[in-house]
Amino acid sequence: MTGSTLAPFTADDYRARMDRAARAAADAGLAGLLVAPGPDLVWLTGYAPPAATERLTLLVLAPGRAPVLVVPTLEAPDAAKAAGASALSLRDWTDGKDPYAATAALLDVDGRFGISDNAWAMHLLGLQRALPGTTYASLTEALPMLRAVKDEAELELMAAAGAAADATFEEIRKVPFAGRRESEVGADLAELLRRFGHSQVDFTIVASGPNGADPHHEVGDRVIERGDMVVLDFGGLKDGYGSDTSRTVHVGEPTDEERRVHDLVREAQEAGFRAVRPGVACQEVDRAARAVIEDAGYGEYFIHRTGHGIGVTTHEPPYMIEGELQPLVPGMCFSVEPGVYLPGRFGVRIEDIVTVTANGGRRLNDTDREMVIVD
Amino acid sequence: MTGSTLAPFTADDYRARMDRAARAAADAGLAGLLVAPGPDLVWLTGYAPPAATERLTLLVLAPGRAPVLVVPTLEAPDAAKAAGASALSLRDWTDGKDPYAATAALLDVDGRFGISDNAWAMHLLGLQRALPGTTYASLTEALPMLRAVKDEAELELMAAAGAAADATFEEIRKVPFAGRRESEVGADLAELLRRFGHSQVDFTIVASGPNGADPHHEVGDRVIERGDMVVLDFGGLKDGYGSDTSRTVHVGEPTDEERRVHDLVREAQEAGFRAVRPGVACQEVDRAARAVIEDAGYGEYFIHRTGHGIGVTTHEPPYMIEGELQPLVPGMCFSVEPGVYLPGRFGVRIEDIVTVTANGGRRLNDTDREMVIVD
Repeated sequence: MTGSTLAPFTADDYRARMDRAARAAADAGLAGLLVAPGPDLVWLTGYAPPAATERLTLLVLAPGRAPVLVVPTLEAPDAAKAAGASALSLRDWTDGKDPYAATAALLDVDGRFGISDNAWAMHLLGLQRALPGTTYASLTEALPMLRAVKDEAELELMAAAGAAADATFEEIRKVPFAGRRESEVGADLAELLRRFGHSQVDFTIVASGPNGADPHHEVGDRVIERGDMVVLDFGGLKDGYGSDTSRTVHVGEPTDEERRVHDLVREAQEAGFRAVRPGVACQEVDRAARAVIEDAGYGEYFIHRTGHGIGVTTHEPPYMIEGELQPLVPGMCFSVEPGVYLPGRFGVRIEDIVTVTANGGRRLNDTDREMVIVD
Repeated sequence: MTGSTLAPFTADDYRARMDRAARAAADAGLAGLLVAPGPDLVWLTGYAPPAATERLTLLVLAPGRAPVLVVPTLEAPDAAKAAGASALSLRDWTDGKDPYAATAALLDVDGRFGISDNAWAMHLLGLQRALPGTTYASLTEALPMLRAVKDEAELELMAAAGAAADATFEEIRKVPFAGRRESEVGADLAELLRRFGHSQVDFTIVASGPNGADPHHEVGDRVIERGDMVVLDFGGLKDGYGSDTSRTVHVGEPTDEERRVHDLVREAQEAGFRAVRPGVACQEVDRAARAVIEDAGYGEYFIHRTGHGIGVTTHEPPYMIEGELQPLVPGMCFSVEPGVYLPGRFGVRIEDIVTVTANGGRRLNDTDREMVIVD
């Protein structure tokens, strides 16, 4: 997998992304961007080192200069095979040498730089020591929307990932739930995601009965029983782009209250979706979904934000949360996933990935949002 | 997997580790340790969040105070299930609140702190902004040997991981090589590591013919041919502890030169192993192995350090490298893995994990170090 392109983009695509990123950095008053292994580096260069390690790999993008990838000598041959490699130059460093000094030589001594959120603290500390006059901001803070707006090719990949997640739901609703452990249904989900083309499974939440009231419960040893609500929330990466969808199913017939709460969450999700259109602040999507739940008296049981961006990662800006004033732009992709969590009893969450269109939103997930009854 | 213990340790074990770490911090003049999700947190608390994310999770260890785990509210129920949870208190924070302010309240305003190498830069920047008077050092710099000395229970787990890697080699030497792609043999390695108990496969290097001259080549599409040298280097985590071993096999009969280079690397590996005993500086292990290769005139083709520590990760201090004066201590575990890489032609690497004993070293890998001929 090393050095391979994770999506069908060319060196020209990566060159254009790096140019755009460097211009955005200049517009934001930054002397440059420092990009660590992970989603930023994949998106900008197509290069995914086997692992982020104590050995520094860092892309330096400075407005008006050619991109340079600082890379351990051992990993340079793989880096040279990346799809975007011809759009940058490699500067390799050997075990025992100081990679921060090598990087510092590429940087303005008193510049302010954006650095990948997930760059290792040890590497940031190394740079801060090598160049005490520099200052830093995380890329999410400095350029939160760097990867947020997807182009046509990216939207196709997002839609394909969403379709694969939907195909997974269509299969999982047919498997037996009652009498099996959450972990077994979770394994089914992972296998289905892979069968439908995912190369990476990021989460397979199967939260049954009272576990459903913990929004981040993944899978446990609990044996699912007839009468349980079961929150399913699963996704990962297919061809380098993310999926993430939730449906809440019921084992056998639900009670009136369970049906009422499910209907409420469905209405909230619909309201969130309908709030999506260009120019609207992200917080309005959260407010629209939240208002439905609050008006029904369940506000205190909706204990998380309404959504998060998705692209080459399954969690990224923009966030649909109170206080986020970023206006929606066509091509942005994010989740709309309100929930209600009744401690000790059950939870309900319904989630689609939505992309902003010229005049509204388009769902990239479209399985049944009515409550599905399983066995 | 969330919240689960990755190894059979108790809350008392974790309490003892946290106590020891806090004392080591005090001895090093630090006001505390800030521990991010990943190997440090697993080792200190048994807690492995599903993923490191933009949501701050951070263990604060300060000498003389009780340990506090700052954790997103959503993830608090999982954190509370960790094996070490009863040895610490949880401080949760909710979406929309400032987690850095919450953490800052636990820290000396002008203290110097050790922070996990792999803590996200965005979190370090958040702390630096919340408490401008604080300074930081990476844990590898501040307390490089924090996890380096393994206790008896850990050594048993390390030995079991090594035995599983050895069992993998005994099987892989029987599979067909000629006519198959490196990626197919790599898939076999991954399957075998899992079959022998690994929960995580970190690398499956199959570097055939000229690819063997790139020490970090993983697997590619190259079809292995009769006459190829093939470097195999594989490992991962079994029950939370790491394996990592390399053997270089030959498809059919080797040439005299191939045999000579393989013998040379084997002698270098033996020399490195023999240099291992308590009190010896790490660099002496590197020097011992390197001298053999240099004396034979191949010095310029041994282009990496001789070894790295291993434990709850497959790469950690101590490093067997020129300039590393750290003395070896019984219980340390690291690789001894010299190699010779002839560009465009072939490479040879032989690697065992070695643990320091009271009066020498003990190999945790022990498959045939003579050249193995495969089909």
